[in-house]
Amino acid sequence: MADVVAGDGLDRLSLNVWTTKGWSLPEAVAGCVAAGVPGIGLWRDKVAEVGLDVAARLVRDSGLTVTSLCRGGFFTGDAAHRAAAASDNRRAVYEAAALGAGVLALVAGGLPSGSTDLAGTRAQVAEGVAALAPYAAGHGVRLAIEPLHPMFCADRAVISTLGQALDLAEQADPSGAAVGVCLDSYHVWWDPQLLAQIGRAGPRIFAFQVSDFLVPIPPDALLGRGHLGDGVIDVPALARAVLATGYPGLIEVEIFNQDVWDTPGEQTLRTVIGRHRRYLSAITDAGRPGSC
Amino acid sequence: MADVVAGDGLDRLSLNVWTTKGWSLPEAVAGCVAAGVPGIGLWRDKVAEVGLDVAARLVRDSGLTVTSLCRGGFFTGDAAHRAAAASDNRRAVYEAAALGAGVLALVAGGLPSGSTDLAGTRAQVAEGVAALAPYAAGHGVRLAIEPLHPMFCADRAVISTLGQALDLAEQADPSGAAVGVCLDSYHVWWDPQLLAQIGRAGPRIFAFQVSDFLVPIPPDALLGRGHLGDGVIDVPALARAVLATGYPGLIEVEIFNQDVWDTPGEQTLRTVIGRHRRYLSAITDAGRPGSC
Repeated sequence: MADVVAGDGLDRLSLNVWTTKGWSLPEAVAGCVAAGVPGIGLWRDKVAEVGLDVAARLVRDSGLTVTSLCRGGFFTGDAAHRAAAASDNRRAVYEAAALGAGVLALVAGGLPSGSTDLAGTRAQVAEGVAALAPYAAGHGVRLAIEPLHPMFCADRAVISTLGQALDLAEQADPSGAAVGVCLDSYHVWWDPQLLAQIGRAGPRIFAFQVSDFLVPIPPDALLGRGHLGDGVIDVPALARAVLATGYPGLIEVEIFNQDVWDTPGEQTLRTVIGRHRRYLSAITDAGRPGSC
Repeated sequence: MADVVAGDGLDRLSLNVWTTKGWSLPEAVAGCVAAGVPGIGLWRDKVAEVGLDVAARLVRDSGLTVTSLCRGGFFTGDAAHRAAAASDNRRAVYEAAALGAGVLALVAGGLPSGSTDLAGTRAQVAEGVAALAPYAAGHGVRLAIEPLHPMFCADRAVISTLGQALDLAEQADPSGAAVGVCLDSYHVWWDPQLLAQIGRAGPRIFAFQVSDFLVPIPPDALLGRGHLGDGVIDVPALARAVLATGYPGLIEVEIFNQDVWDTPGEQTLRTVIGRHRRYLSAITDAGRPGSC
């Protein structure tokens, strides 16, 4: 991290590779290093493009901190699907360990096709997390359950709130060391219990992702994320709350947005850096040892 | 209600006039009477088309139970907007009283343009409800705060959960007689705390609206509602929970969906009736005096 200058405001910035979707993993790593961004969040598809060994060596040699690997989970469905998911999740844990990711983000999975059994589906998630937890712990990988916005409850994640994710994490791992949560501003900003649940979460926040929530929501709601400041979320307030728990990690910028994806990676990363400096550097600097 | 035959399974069915959007108010009233549907949910725009006096006489003469008037609220914004909203809300209360509606549904309002102050905006809603409550009580109209799905938090309603709506209602009216909630399956089905909060709500559930949640969500999320059975919500389970609180009212079908709106009113009402019989009649009949 030779390019990182102390006090440049980027100490706690991480770039999720899907934010610069047009970049390959080597391009994203090089981009972060060149720009002095100390962290990177990985996705398994980008890793697979170059192969696990190459990716692991690449990120290790770069000196970047790997803030998360996205993603495992999808615990819901019939027995065959669940068995396949369990196998794939063990593979994801293995990849996270190899990449030095430390944290594997888990997306719960939605209602199985034709089902209206929300409680039963949530029980499948609890079972899946509990079964994966010892395997992950054995590999030194922490599991971070990610609540998704309720608009994705049916098709993607039946875990919709931070409180619910914490209930699951506590159930699977009373110690708090192995199973926690991935908090993404886009998914949780609306929750009236958010600040109280962040306080409850304490050290169980294993990953912290940010983007803004754009209005109106585009036809594909998955892509309704924007750069900080372009939407309705008070991300600085959220970051202050997360950092107040003692969260020691980086703040990862993960933006799904077709316009952002159509922009050259260099330009997107410049915007990410600019917005981080504008909205978050003062907050993260305030928590730096030696700062006043 | 001469056409209603005891035991026909429709005793607790109400048609919201927006479900048959192509129908005028007189057509909707005539349609309900002819079909033996005992209740109707009104919207102010449909009332305005014929005028308040004509509408009030029409529904009174029909013998239909008016299950709700939609809607007041939109308490959020700058001082001028809030003053205008307060005035319009008093007018809505007056209309509800004239129509014999008994219940006025309140939609909170979203974040003011450019604002990210969710807590401050929610405080505006609390102020607005508290200010309206005595006026409504003086007119014999109960206020029903309607939590909207979190995907509408930014642009339509900063009140997103039943728990949050109950907090507001309790704050504005400790007695429980004047301010309660309007529970709409489409908006609340995903909430992990839903059943617990329904239990908490007890007699504060003043209106109960149902539709199904369609997947995928259409480009305009407002229109993603379907007839019961066409989506992912276990409406019968929800209805059982609501009726278990002693909810004495009707179950109002409110569907926003372009395909449904493009269907002739008679046909839509036949579908509404068919689905009510298939999914809800056994539940509502079980609660009828004299039923086994």
